[in-house]
Amino acid sequence: MGSAGGDPATLPAVLLFRRPDGAVSATLSERFVVLDFRASGEPLPAFLAAAAAEPDPPRAAIVVGGGSVVVDASFLDAVPSLRCVVSTGAGVDHIDLAECARRGVAVANSGEVYSADVADYAVGLLLDVLRQVSAAGRYVRRGAWPVQGDYPLGSKLGGKRVGIIGLGNIGSRIAKRLEAFGCVIHYNSRNPKDSVSYKFFPNVQSLAAESDVLVVACALTKATQRIVNKDVLEALGKGGVIINIGRGANIDEAELVMALKEGKIAGAGLDVFEHEPKTQSELFSMDNVVLSPHVAVFTEESRSDLRVHTIGNLEAFFSGQPLVSPMHADSLVQ
Amino acid sequence: MGSAGGDPATLPAVLLFRRPDGAVSATLSERFVVLDFRASGEPLPAFLAAAAAEPDPPRAAIVVGGGSVVVDASFLDAVPSLRCVVSTGAGVDHIDLAECARRGVAVANSGEVYSADVADYAVGLLLDVLRQVSAAGRYVRRGAWPVQGDYPLGSKLGGKRVGIIGLGNIGSRIAKRLEAFGCVIHYNSRNPKDSVSYKFFPNVQSLAAESDVLVVACALTKATQRIVNKDVLEALGKGGVIINIGRGANIDEAELVMALKEGKIAGAGLDVFEHEPKTQSELFSMDNVVLSPHVAVFTEESRSDLRVHTIGNLEAFFSGQPLVSPMHADSLVQ
Repeated sequence: MGSAGGDPATLPAVLLFRRPDGAVSATLSERFVVLDFRASGEPLPAFLAAAAAEPDPPRAAIVVGGGSVVVDASFLDAVPSLRCVVSTGAGVDHIDLAECARRGVAVANSGEVYSADVADYAVGLLLDVLRQVSAAGRYVRRGAWPVQGDYPLGSKLGGKRVGIIGLGNIGSRIAKRLEAFGCVIHYNSRNPKDSVSYKFFPNVQSLAAESDVLVVACALTKATQRIVNKDVLEALGKGGVIINIGRGANIDEAELVMALKEGKIAGAGLDVFEHEPKTQSELFSMDNVVLSPHVAVFTEESRSDLRVHTIGNLEAFFSGQPLVSPMHADSLVQ
Repeated sequence: MGSAGGDPATLPAVLLFRRPDGAVSATLSERFVVLDFRASGEPLPAFLAAAAAEPDPPRAAIVVGGGSVVVDASFLDAVPSLRCVVSTGAGVDHIDLAECARRGVAVANSGEVYSADVADYAVGLLLDVLRQVSAAGRYVRRGAWPVQGDYPLGSKLGGKRVGIIGLGNIGSRIAKRLEAFGCVIHYNSRNPKDSVSYKFFPNVQSLAAESDVLVVACALTKATQRIVNKDVLEALGKGGVIINIGRGANIDEAELVMALKEGKIAGAGLDVFEHEPKTQSELFSMDNVVLSPHVAVFTEESRSDLRVHTIGNLEAFFSGQPLVSPMHADSLVQ
């Protein structure tokens, strides 16, 4: 197990940019000297400068996915000893992959740790929007059922054409689940995949035009920022539903809110937002919208898997082995 | 098409015990003389007596599933001409099948019209309970996310042992869907099924003891009334979740509420209740319970399929053909 255990003086230093999590912290401090940004209470530049000035400066950092700390040129300049960045998220939009590659800094993400949970959640959001689970639940809880009678009809999942944007670890798991419900799977990605028989669409607008449901399951990159824009929403049309378990910025949120307000699409299930934890409060009154606080990755089980996975990446790095889940600038899903 | 269209004088009479539904009513009155109980405004005995006194008394009746009208000996005595009862529901607990059989009255139910929708909804409820979709949605809608931070971790669906009570049209579709999520399927029914490789349990208590989730997908009969009782809830245990898309009376509701209040099981997703549309208001404050107003069968698509199916059963009966979806006293799912 290479660097595990032993004399604290010989343990390698690791930068930690992550909320405290009892189990992870305990496991980390058995194996590494943990330099904890949040615990330090210092501003980022001072914290990085102090870390760089250590006798054995940190060669690895753990950063939280979608966090406020961005690993860019100035971050890397501040700690030139850094050679490995491990993200606890699937998305690495907070890491400048090209800059890391240029400097020989290896990057790992959470690999497939979250993929099943996120795919499950996407299906849960879609079932909720179509079958009105949350809205009908609110109807029961406010005592309306005995007074107002039957709840309006929902819409059947089976037979729906589901267009998935990004057929990677998550998107392909969503497809597999929805096939069991009798959905027809379409997809858009940078290139067609030989391994699947789903219909490929070279752009998102044409995908939307031939889909009843659009699921955003791609990474956030410059190319996928606002990939769902006004034209895509229009192509999806009045009966269409949007599910987003990618990143808020994958959708033009102002246009989405407008389309929902004006009935230009039928509904939405959103786990992610452009300015989390802020959401568009105009959506709160809409029963055809399911809102969710970025929890698609959050289960007890995935949290535990993540601990094992994060430590695995760090130990691989410190023992000179290939990372468990390396990320390259060209490996992003879309 | 036997009896379809033509001179109203030659159309057969049909009793209708169902809420008005524009499309169904129009289709029915093209083909039959419809004697509509609700439209008559009369009490049931007077309505039945008047129908029986018609020159061409009705030989068929359409009854609503789970409705307030019960087809029992006294009902059948009142209209002795009756030879066919078509239920618009999957469950036929409101029809005395043995009494019908004794008198040679054929009974049809909704067959597989609803099966996919109900199976979808069961999965939706389960995802909602485990991943807290509705509860997390309420958290967002009351503005708590920016103030209180991350929502608590959910529980992963993959790997869960799901015990299905009743592996019929609906139960087997639930199993197929949950296999795609990586669940392990167990089941209880009157007899093991040769067609599946899932593990069979001869009684519900032993099924509960080896399951993380119990799904009630059986018909309501004397044998399945309160099939989920206190002992079953105890066998399911603290981490266990109950989903009910069968009938409210399949569960001892008072014991269920108690188990939820005392944390003896982990959560529940309930589409049906013992005294609908009344529900146990003690459940309203529980975030680990998903409540739903008996809508698992309700989609635009299934409503349309039901029209075709109901007319099909009636036309089969009047033209002397076998019913499309005949029910026998021994054909109930459990």
